[in-house]
Amino acid sequence: MAARESGGMAAARCAGRIGVMASVAVNLALLAMYIRRRYFGGGRSDKDIVPSKGKPPVTSESVVNLDHGDPTLYEEFWHGTGDRATIVIPGWQTMSYFSDLGGFCWFVEPGFEREVRRLHRLVGNAVVDGYYFLAGTGSTQLFQAALYALSPAEDGTPMSVVSPAPYYSSYPSVTNFLNSALYRWDGDANMFNGDTCIELVCSPNNPDGGIRKAVIKSNSGKTIHDFAYNWPQYTPITEAASHDIMLFTVSKCTGHAGTRLGWALVKDMEVAQKMIKFMELNTIGVSKDSQLRAAKILKAVCDGYELSPASEANRLFHFAQRKMAERWSKLRATVAASGIFSLPNEVSDYCTFAKEKVTANPPFAWLRCHKDGLDDLEAFLRGNKIITRGGPKFGVDEKVVRVSMLDTDEAFNMFIGRIASLK
Amino acid sequence: MAARESGGMAAARCAGRIGVMASVAVNLALLAMYIRRRYFGGGRSDKDIVPSKGKPPVTSESVVNLDHGDPTLYEEFWHGTGDRATIVIPGWQTMSYFSDLGGFCWFVEPGFEREVRRLHRLVGNAVVDGYYFLAGTGSTQLFQAALYALSPAEDGTPMSVVSPAPYYSSYPSVTNFLNSALYRWDGDANMFNGDTCIELVCSPNNPDGGIRKAVIKSNSGKTIHDFAYNWPQYTPITEAASHDIMLFTVSKCTGHAGTRLGWALVKDMEVAQKMIKFMELNTIGVSKDSQLRAAKILKAVCDGYELSPASEANRLFHFAQRKMAERWSKLRATVAASGIFSLPNEVSDYCTFAKEKVTANPPFAWLRCHKDGLDDLEAFLRGNKIITRGGPKFGVDEKVVRVSMLDTDEAFNMFIGRIASLK
Repeated sequence: MAARESGGMAAARCAGRIGVMASVAVNLALLAMYIRRRYFGGGRSDKDIVPSKGKPPVTSESVVNLDHGDPTLYEEFWHGTGDRATIVIPGWQTMSYFSDLGGFCWFVEPGFEREVRRLHRLVGNAVVDGYYFLAGTGSTQLFQAALYALSPAEDGTPMSVVSPAPYYSSYPSVTNFLNSALYRWDGDANMFNGDTCIELVCSPNNPDGGIRKAVIKSNSGKTIHDFAYNWPQYTPITEAASHDIMLFTVSKCTGHAGTRLGWALVKDMEVAQKMIKFMELNTIGVSKDSQLRAAKILKAVCDGYELSPASEANRLFHFAQRKMAERWSKLRATVAASGIFSLPNEVSDYCTFAKEKVTANPPFAWLRCHKDGLDDLEAFLRGNKIITRGGPKFGVDEKVVRVSMLDTDEAFNMFIGRIASLK
Repeated sequence: MAARESGGMAAARCAGRIGVMASVAVNLALLAMYIRRRYFGGGRSDKDIVPSKGKPPVTSESVVNLDHGDPTLYEEFWHGTGDRATIVIPGWQTMSYFSDLGGFCWFVEPGFEREVRRLHRLVGNAVVDGYYFLAGTGSTQLFQAALYALSPAEDGTPMSVVSPAPYYSSYPSVTNFLNSALYRWDGDANMFNGDTCIELVCSPNNPDGGIRKAVIKSNSGKTIHDFAYNWPQYTPITEAASHDIMLFTVSKCTGHAGTRLGWALVKDMEVAQKMIKFMELNTIGVSKDSQLRAAKILKAVCDGYELSPASEANRLFHFAQRKMAERWSKLRATVAASGIFSLPNEVSDYCTFAKEKVTANPPFAWLRCHKDGLDDLEAFLRGNKIITRGGPKFGVDEKVVRVSMLDTDEAFNMFIGRIASLK
């Protein structure tokens, strides 16, 4: 989908500060001071901030924040691409609300659409011919647009929205925060026994990496496929998917989360038009600067495979697949040695993109603890300066947490070191 | 606010095509062909599109579309600023979700906030000290964030949202499209007789340019000030405003509508925090590319006044004020000669920014027709190949329309020529 990482940003802000201060109490006092300083018009200097992340650097005293899937793993790759991925926008460019009045969606930059279609053809993870294309402010916004488009406008009862547990923690809050009479979160799809619903199918699944198909068998059921992680660095590509609504995001494909840009491939014209209507009312379209930048980024990815020498410096998915595989290998070894933790089983399959059998490297570790007497794993890890997201937020128990595998090497290695020390 | 221009984008798309085809019937057939071509994966060439607008050029046969306040008037200025307003973003920059974990709002780029605060100090149109600063995907999104923040979460009755007619046509639809139980559009503020409400105060007012103060006198009433047009090219600046929630947008300040970026100045910390929560759930923050670009653009505006020779090529507000004054002068002369049209009276006041008495040049003309037997002015003008937005969308009668004064010289001059010929 969709709301990749909402919900816990306040916690992250807090964690960032804890990381700097190494003490919650001191931190709260300084937090108050920070707020006062901002309130009266600034004061902090930009040099306190790592330019591309806005976060303080990780140190051996830091709290390691792996609550969000902040994809800073990818920075290393983009430091190596030079001008090929640099966007230049003169002051006069794309000033209008309109990107393409002759196109299906007036706010889509044609260059962005072109590179996305090219990318899917390169990777083979989704069918693009016969699909309408929409842009969104991250796939979060497109998720809401899809709910709006799929919910009957005027029948009085909100449409049920479900997903099998463990489900992405933002689905309930994003569905319900405006208390819309059009739709309402209705929990675990496996427990649903109503007549009709919208099922969210996230595959590979956030949080546990599982490969998912829709579980609701009703003919009147509708699905939204959240394919944020359906890329070869995370999962073997086994087919070009062709579902009714498929959502993607640059955040987890190339690592550009700050660009806040997603896209939808939509089979039905009326559904696509209603989604466009949502985008008009919610934000009058989508940042053209983000679209121009993403077009350049995705062009660099495609060119890297189609026009450049076959080196990892040119090949994003190969770079990221290697990084993810190295991290999973370290994590599995550490977990095996720990005696108290476990992870979902490793799975592998033939990947039509890599043209070989490859092992899945999910974007999150779904880490379970078997230590006697330990009930709340999120709290236990927090006490050990590791911020994760606990099972209850995903509709399951407290002995499991989600851990981002996409952060910087420094943060990941600090995490490995710390869990290795837990007995 | 806020939803500058949502609501009527489908009409614009249509109008754009009509402009090309000059015939509705031919146009619909070609539209179907267009959609088929897009649907099966593109086909049109980018060279059909004016690069910075996505719209076909205006010709003597075109329908002139002045339905939206598309601020393409400003392109001329930004063609003259060269590198000073050009943004360069390397592939590795601002990849994280986070802009500033130490700041009040984690998704605000510090450079953007800094330039906005500097701009308000330069122009003198709003107090910034003591205010929290938020970014939004256009002020539209911030408008919804403010409704969310000001509506009681759980008392069961939706909060009434009102504005005095004529009110901005998107207020009702943006308030109601999700059928939220938190708030509901309740029409003309002058007719409101409930206990409590949120009043939208747009000043200068969209559509009629009037200078507005809140009309609801209740102590429990809350206000959102939509200051999209509170800039010296449109209105004499008479005070540094200091209301509870003030919304601005780059769209109508510098003309960068495609950047989809607005900001809010908010007095109360809890309200600002709830607005941040809305932004997290709705779009997980705001495009950093847009913020980086806007920071550069606003820096060029401020530098143009504070660091450069006093020429119009450096001074955005002086450029735009001259253009607007020239257009209003042409329009007033044409209307006076027509015998069938009228406009709101010209107003002027001492402007603390210009340091002289200046005449207001509203962003929209609120054009009324007094021709006998003519009931629907929007339809009459459409029949004469001028697309405007009719009074009923703003809560008033059909004999008045809103006409954008912000389009290109070509479109504006075509409009003047056409209304001069109407008797």
